[in-house]
Amino acid sequence: MHSTLIRYFPIMTWGKTYNRAALTNDMIAALIVTIMLIPQSLAYALLAGLPPEAGLYASIAPIVLYAIFGTSRALAVGPVAVVSLMTAAALGNIVDQGTAGYAIAALTLAFLSGVMLLGMGLFKLGFVANFLSHPVIAGFITASGIIIAASQLKHILGIKAEGHNLLELVHSIITHLPETQWITLIIGVLATGFLFWVRKGLKPLLLKLGVAKGAADVATKAGPVAVVVLTTLAVWLFGLADKGVAIVGDVPQSLPPLTMPSFSPDLVSQLLLPAFLISIIGFVESISVAQTLAAKKRQRIDPDQELIGLGAANLGASLTGGFPVTGGFSRSVVNFDAGAETPAAGAYTAIGLAIAAVALTPLIYFLPKATLAATIIVAVLSLVDFSILKRSWAYSKADFAAVLATILLTLAIGVEVGVSAGVGLSIVLHLYKSSKPHIAEVGLVPGTEHYRNILRHKVETDPKVVNLRVDESLYFANARFLEDKIYDRVTSDKGVRHVVLQCCAINEIDLSALESLETINTRLSEMDVKLHLSEVKGPVMDVLKRAHFLDELTGKVFLSQFEAATALR
Amino acid sequence: MHSTLIRYFPIMTWGKTYNRAALTNDMIAALIVTIMLIPQSLAYALLAGLPPEAGLYASIAPIVLYAIFGTSRALAVGPVAVVSLMTAAALGNIVDQGTAGYAIAALTLAFLSGVMLLGMGLFKLGFVANFLSHPVIAGFITASGIIIAASQLKHILGIKAEGHNLLELVHSIITHLPETQWITLIIGVLATGFLFWVRKGLKPLLLKLGVAKGAADVATKAGPVAVVVLTTLAVWLFGLADKGVAIVGDVPQSLPPLTMPSFSPDLVSQLLLPAFLISIIGFVESISVAQTLAAKKRQRIDPDQELIGLGAANLGASLTGGFPVTGGFSRSVVNFDAGAETPAAGAYTAIGLAIAAVALTPLIYFLPKATLAATIIVAVLSLVDFSILKRSWAYSKADFAAVLATILLTLAIGVEVGVSAGVGLSIVLHLYKSSKPHIAEVGLVPGTEHYRNILRHKVETDPKVVNLRVDESLYFANARFLEDKIYDRVTSDKGVRHVVLQCCAINEIDLSALESLETINTRLSEMDVKLHLSEVKGPVMDVLKRAHFLDELTGKVFLSQFEAATALR
Repeated sequence: MHSTLIRYFPIMTWGKTYNRAALTNDMIAALIVTIMLIPQSLAYALLAGLPPEAGLYASIAPIVLYAIFGTSRALAVGPVAVVSLMTAAALGNIVDQGTAGYAIAALTLAFLSGVMLLGMGLFKLGFVANFLSHPVIAGFITASGIIIAASQLKHILGIKAEGHNLLELVHSIITHLPETQWITLIIGVLATGFLFWVRKGLKPLLLKLGVAKGAADVATKAGPVAVVVLTTLAVWLFGLADKGVAIVGDVPQSLPPLTMPSFSPDLVSQLLLPAFLISIIGFVESISVAQTLAAKKRQRIDPDQELIGLGAANLGASLTGGFPVTGGFSRSVVNFDAGAETPAAGAYTAIGLAIAAVALTPLIYFLPKATLAATIIVAVLSLVDFSILKRSWAYSKADFAAVLATILLTLAIGVEVGVSAGVGLSIVLHLYKSSKPHIAEVGLVPGTEHYRNILRHKVETDPKVVNLRVDESLYFANARFLEDKIYDRVTSDKGVRHVVLQCCAINEIDLSALESLETINTRLSEMDVKLHLSEVKGPVMDVLKRAHFLDELTGKVFLSQFEAATALR
Repeated sequence: MHSTLIRYFPIMTWGKTYNRAALTNDMIAALIVTIMLIPQSLAYALLAGLPPEAGLYASIAPIVLYAIFGTSRALAVGPVAVVSLMTAAALGNIVDQGTAGYAIAALTLAFLSGVMLLGMGLFKLGFVANFLSHPVIAGFITASGIIIAASQLKHILGIKAEGHNLLELVHSIITHLPETQWITLIIGVLATGFLFWVRKGLKPLLLKLGVAKGAADVATKAGPVAVVVLTTLAVWLFGLADKGVAIVGDVPQSLPPLTMPSFSPDLVSQLLLPAFLISIIGFVESISVAQTLAAKKRQRIDPDQELIGLGAANLGASLTGGFPVTGGFSRSVVNFDAGAETPAAGAYTAIGLAIAAVALTPLIYFLPKATLAATIIVAVLSLVDFSILKRSWAYSKADFAAVLATILLTLAIGVEVGVSAGVGLSIVLHLYKSSKPHIAEVGLVPGTEHYRNILRHKVETDPKVVNLRVDESLYFANARFLEDKIYDRVTSDKGVRHVVLQCCAINEIDLSALESLETINTRLSEMDVKLHLSEVKGPVMDVLKRAHFLDELTGKVFLSQFEAATALR
């Protein structure tokens, strides 16, 4: 009972030994993360098509719930770029942005995603996420980064533009280009340039000026806050809002409200697939961050419990005015680097953000949307990395095809189609490859007991005996391929009297493959050819015995290929 | 050029050496097959929901076209039970039986199926059929047999009943049961009983009476013809048609007509999936018959060319008033047993059927539909075999689940859903299994150089070294599983300094798995643990070298696990 409690409430593990040192470290980390999260949360709400306060709300309850249920000590949960983009894409097809229905649909999406994540965690179905291959994720993140950056250009230009893929966005932006709002553009370009410079040039400069490394780090992380403050002041002082600069405007001064998702069957059924994709993508992104950070301290992450933690976080988001969340890379790394020792750091961050939501929102009335867009653009462009194309091309054409399809379809059609196509293509190509396994005809390396591919090595063969090595487990998709190979070989050479299958690489034989072996055995015997096996693994041998295949086998089972050759000579 | 011609026109191979002896054998086989095919063709047309002459037409052009393009010497192509059922199921949802649209839809289905088969043959895509696992096929055939038998009961009872799955059929039959036509029922039951007796009891009886084996065989095969003749005579003599017995009635006296399928985009799009499933099921059924017969004479079947042969046959069917066809089991076996030596036997059969279509159709005016139904029932009940359930249960629960799903869904919903679900479930279960590969921690068997599972054998281990053997190729679906296993093991035991992966069963490492290995390597090194590999296969080693993984590896690559242990001690 107690161990079950501990399994589902990791807080009971670290809570027991929580002390003043850990408290201090966690509080410092929380302060730094809070400062960083305020502009980021507002920006990702904007990206998701929601009012800015939704970003703050989505960072408060989820971070606390993750602290209770999650297993990572440093993961910070909240809105992240790719999931916010996927939220906008999912909702944009169903309801109009800016309506009350849109916000409710966002809650529903978070709720569904939470239920799915919880379900996968409780039923230990996290393996589903494994079908998202690394190259597909890399391609998807890169393409998403481009779409996100493109989607923010409208705020920099001060125009209206819409679209959920690159083609739509570019077309819409070009159409509206003549409406460019020049003051907004100047603010946007300056903010973007400044943020890029903070990221690349500020820290070396400060270090050169003799500033301590820690202070230089904090200054770098405070960059976005500085831009927010400066541009807000500029708009206020020069009355730029009246000159057409789009601002954040009124934001309610409030703790996260209690909200309810919609259970309209229509809406739910339309959001099921997006919620599933968001859950999987979010989980994969989150767990890889969590594992990276845990490894540095030799801590353990339990993937199934992580699903529960993220599920709880999303349910929390749906009940407190948020939208889908997950563990974010940059905020978690900042949290870790700032010295967070336990998930309590997350709880303190939540308190910081709650204070911000109650007290600081009037201060961002004049914050230009262009500044938030600049924050997003600078953050996501670091995600864009086309090197996966080069790497996968060099490594394997199947991986390359999956990446290319993911990138092109995400850019051309949208995130859901892109990632689904990538996963689908990976699976199809994997099945295709394993349906045509490598089958080598082998012969004896003279003077040894080793058998090698006759096409690659100088080996001795016996015209009466065909030795075939199958380099793959046998299952339904490749069983008939083996049949064809063997019949081809035997019918084209009438002198053959024995076929020996070297089974050292066969880890499993399913029922289809067993029936194929039986058929091969029968048909070969009708051709007056005997079938033998060699080097069969223990578990495979057990299965063959249980199925009485060995009783039917016309030939024998040999311990080694060499033994087979000696016996058949 | 010449060899390409020979590849696509197998007729050029056997045509050159065709002589009088082969001619005689082929003619005799053709005569026997023709007699058997006349009632069978009529019956399968009835099953497909088409007028009886469509069955004759579907046996004429296809058999000739297969003779030209196919590689089997004995395969007889024409309407078969399961494909006819699938035709009825596909068309029943779209058009009303008995209308002109229905016949045209049947032509269209044959046309689409022909195009798909040809396409798969030309582009060598026959491997697609391999995803239909043996157990799924066995379950599907059994369930189809039951549905076919149930669908024919209405003809035996002389009532109207409809449905494409067992539930609908049973419900419909029970509803209409009070309308049972008693004379029809008597004819149907007698015909069914007689045919069962011919199948089981006639041959032993004749042999006991001293009849020669060959003559007894012919008598057995002539059983259906005898029933046709007797029941037709009975209806004619006693005027039973006027008393309500449903008869075949007017059948046009004509050679196969030239027909055109419809290219209406609506119809075509509705028939695409059924045509694909019919193509795959037909191909699988046909090739397994062809290979069984070819093996008996050590002849070669080329699966890709078989696709072309079947594709041509279906295109032929669609242009000459037929419906989807494939190589049939019983007719091919009869053809083979009767001594057919070349595909020319098929051409002679076509001539026989053409004569029947022109000259004999008036004779079947009074043939009761109940007789044809009896022929079908007796033929398909031999397909019903539930032993696959027992066999797969004993062999593997995954195979069992796929079979059970196929049988239940085919019976409860229909053929298309049933077979699709079976294939889908097989693939999902296969992916699931390979996503959780067997990973054994191994130790040294004392006094040897062998390493075995520490849970199964008494072995020596070193507390600083963890030896893991992975019994599966590494790819995206199981890469993270390996990561989790390793982190779990290393974080739960702080004394570990080395992890050695024994790679003897790894046939392939894809890019995701490589990246997982890189991540494992990095994270382990952060935990101050070195990663080593042992017994890496040649091709895998090449790939790792090309990707520069060996440069990053913190540990070494050892030729054997024993060598690794010695070096790390």
